[in-house]
Amino acid sequence: MAKPKKTPRPKAQTPKGFRDYFGTEVTERKAMLDKIAEVYHLYGFDPLETSAVETVEALGKFLPDVDRPNEGVFAWQEDDADWLALRYDLTAPLARVAAQYRNDLPSPYRRYAMGPVWRNEKPGPGRFRQFYQCDADTVGAPSVAADAEVCAMLATALEAVGIARGDYIVRVNNRKVLNGVFESAGLLDSEYLADNLKRVGIAIRAVDKFDRLGSDGVKALLGKGREDESGAFVEGANLAEWQIDRILGFATAKQSTELETLDRLTELVGNSDEGLQGVEELKHISDLLSAQGFGPDRIVIDPSVVRGLGYYTGPVFEAELTFEVQNDKGQTVQFGSVAGGGRYDDLVKRFTGQAVPATGVSIGVDRLLAALRAKGQAQTAAPGPVIVTVMDRDRIADYQAMVGTLRDAGIRAELYLGNPKNFGNQLKYADKRAAPVAVIQGSDEAARGVVQIKDLVLGAQIAESASLDEWKSQPAQREVPVADLVAEVQAILARGA
Amino acid sequence: MAKPKKTPRPKAQTPKGFRDYFGTEVTERKAMLDKIAEVYHLYGFDPLETSAVETVEALGKFLPDVDRPNEGVFAWQEDDADWLALRYDLTAPLARVAAQYRNDLPSPYRRYAMGPVWRNEKPGPGRFRQFYQCDADTVGAPSVAADAEVCAMLATALEAVGIARGDYIVRVNNRKVLNGVFESAGLLDSEYLADNLKRVGIAIRAVDKFDRLGSDGVKALLGKGREDESGAFVEGANLAEWQIDRILGFATAKQSTELETLDRLTELVGNSDEGLQGVEELKHISDLLSAQGFGPDRIVIDPSVVRGLGYYTGPVFEAELTFEVQNDKGQTVQFGSVAGGGRYDDLVKRFTGQAVPATGVSIGVDRLLAALRAKGQAQTAAPGPVIVTVMDRDRIADYQAMVGTLRDAGIRAELYLGNPKNFGNQLKYADKRAAPVAVIQGSDEAARGVVQIKDLVLGAQIAESASLDEWKSQPAQREVPVADLVAEVQAILARGA
Repeated sequence: MAKPKKTPRPKAQTPKGFRDYFGTEVTERKAMLDKIAEVYHLYGFDPLETSAVETVEALGKFLPDVDRPNEGVFAWQEDDADWLALRYDLTAPLARVAAQYRNDLPSPYRRYAMGPVWRNEKPGPGRFRQFYQCDADTVGAPSVAADAEVCAMLATALEAVGIARGDYIVRVNNRKVLNGVFESAGLLDSEYLADNLKRVGIAIRAVDKFDRLGSDGVKALLGKGREDESGAFVEGANLAEWQIDRILGFATAKQSTELETLDRLTELVGNSDEGLQGVEELKHISDLLSAQGFGPDRIVIDPSVVRGLGYYTGPVFEAELTFEVQNDKGQTVQFGSVAGGGRYDDLVKRFTGQAVPATGVSIGVDRLLAALRAKGQAQTAAPGPVIVTVMDRDRIADYQAMVGTLRDAGIRAELYLGNPKNFGNQLKYADKRAAPVAVIQGSDEAARGVVQIKDLVLGAQIAESASLDEWKSQPAQREVPVADLVAEVQAILARGA
Repeated sequence: MAKPKKTPRPKAQTPKGFRDYFGTEVTERKAMLDKIAEVYHLYGFDPLETSAVETVEALGKFLPDVDRPNEGVFAWQEDDADWLALRYDLTAPLARVAAQYRNDLPSPYRRYAMGPVWRNEKPGPGRFRQFYQCDADTVGAPSVAADAEVCAMLATALEAVGIARGDYIVRVNNRKVLNGVFESAGLLDSEYLADNLKRVGIAIRAVDKFDRLGSDGVKALLGKGREDESGAFVEGANLAEWQIDRILGFATAKQSTELETLDRLTELVGNSDEGLQGVEELKHISDLLSAQGFGPDRIVIDPSVVRGLGYYTGPVFEAELTFEVQNDKGQTVQFGSVAGGGRYDDLVKRFTGQAVPATGVSIGVDRLLAALRAKGQAQTAAPGPVIVTVMDRDRIADYQAMVGTLRDAGIRAELYLGNPKNFGNQLKYADKRAAPVAVIQGSDEAARGVVQIKDLVLGAQIAESASLDEWKSQPAQREVPVADLVAEVQAILARGA
């Protein structure tokens, strides 16, 4: 008989690109999202929670002529049936819901959604394959009043989580203005339109990269082209100098006041109807925001916001944090973008054939959390529990009763539940739990009806700096009657708070 | 040239067996879980959030000699690499974490986890393939004080979410006592041990089905066997009458006091060491709970709790809600089980080879939520927003300013963002949003510096029951100076609250 093969033990390992969140890592995110949800609620938005799983058909992640879903999603096939996949963002499920329930949902439909999304991408440092998104969108509102509302809500949410006024700015731009600039640059003329549209495509992608490539890089892409990082030559849009100037003029059109900025944009779009409409929309957004007290110190018209212009169809916005932090290289830089969004009027069209106007914003949960940590505004670690130690194994019920008394008084507390034999291990455990207080009662103390209360925070301070006399006087440990247990612990906790 | 095929539009459909949660469906669950988390925190438990995705290896869902993961999980293969799967519960990820971080975690490790899990099962009415679990476990605590703590925490959590004392009971049993009963029934004698162990296996599965099959069904399975629902004959354990009596005696051993119950169990286990230890553990649990004020009116030793006895290795517990509800057939029944758990000492062993004691509880989130709804204790629908209507398209900034004023006062409010042309649609929208108040200001009112405030709740009541005179007097609509907008709306909201 063959010897049965021994199955090797499974590896206890988080899958590559995924991570586990412990304690404060869970609660600090929750605290932030709870505050954001409160603001969204105040603004009339309702929560929506779709399942993590969607049909690939609904996600639209099948490439034509490929029998497996597109790269980038985690997908699997049901037995001889539909392909299913994990959602890669919260917008695709919203589109599905807006189409599926279109007869039942209020219109306009304001909804927010918070939850994990999954990307089947190569993980890198700080880049995970599961992460949180936090979105708010209004579906079915054609007016830019909806865009203005989303911007106001974003500013309010940033302040609610702890970003001080002055430490952030929401910048607003409009794709229609860029279209107007293209038109005024002669790129939408019907003569040579096919050629010109190709150039417009290149130009939009170029402008979208303004942040990364800077003025010179974009200029090259609008002209003859440039070598990219890999050394490959990227063909440019081959525009004339005056056309390039006009397009670059757009991205740098911001003036010292919003009115001047709008005037400059009006110049740039010339006679373009769409461009003029875009400028008008920006003015309207600015007016609506002023009427609610959001001045340009918080939300400002700024054509330098170019990210997403290739995707959105109307207003676009981006929230930047303006305070400075040290980057990985030790340089002092502005914290930068934590949220962005805009208007995309084709959300539901692929399901129903009808264009439905929609606008919304997505907050980068991990980015904003990092910002709060940098500003000392993230929820700090919850205090550890008071540890009631076990000196006498036979009297566990007494110790447990003390724990019960503390909990009844609303004090986070627990009985040491490991092997009580080694008392040092109990104090090590208390240390690992960041316990503020240890409660100790040997048989002698029990007989006298007293209990030892050890202030572990003060104890640690003394241990670091105390003289021998101070150490001996043990101010960090006090004996009190059992009846004073709660009051004494509360006093110590109040001191530490 | 061939005519290009038209791609059919994708279906906007939630995948089979999944569902979407809207508004209150999201917030009522969140409110309940938040309250439970508060209790878990008070008891010293820390949150843990693992990713939705685990390696199939870590989940242990590969059957031997099968090249696809076990049924029941959603799984897919990475490119030529590991199989990944969605977690099917929160215990398997805890086992992985306890093994992976065993050198860093405090020991004992108290953790709670709340979140969705996924089952690749055939969906049925009310049975979904994604649902929430809410678990709390203590890893590394050998003492049954840990089990007692979990029971106390469960009772506290049930009261915290709104289950009144007297409406629930946590029942506690112990697998070791059942083992003792088997031993005293001669089923663990070394003679014929292999045969006997097979009988014990059948007997455990039989006892585990006590709830469903009743005394007669279990009796048959302990004896010759019985026909199951499908008509197939299930072989019994073929035990002697006295053995059957002893085992059935165990499941019905509950007496009018805990002491009597423990005495009865002591009789039943005879000289079995394990059985006597099991009884001792139950007594210890009872003492520890009494010491904290949890009497048998809340947590009681009850050997009729048999569910899970086949899986757990020590104490088992189950929380039942004892109030009555109507079932699907219109019968009045007790609400029944909403949570269960127990001790399972092999949690980490498959990863490390070392047995680590663990005990914990899982709350059935959907069941408990249904119970809260039945008792009117679930979070009710949040009030809809105050709707500021649009009478005059050119004055949207004014309306938006009113919305801003209301929001600044903490009142949930929004501007109507649909097409304002048809005023009836605006009121229909307000109705759909369950708006308590509509604010209306035409150009005439604007000129006079006043605003109409419509109490939509009162208005609906009047519309249902009013006489013509009452209708004409329109008590549900009042004209107030713009400066009184907030105060008037607050007064109406206070009336409705």
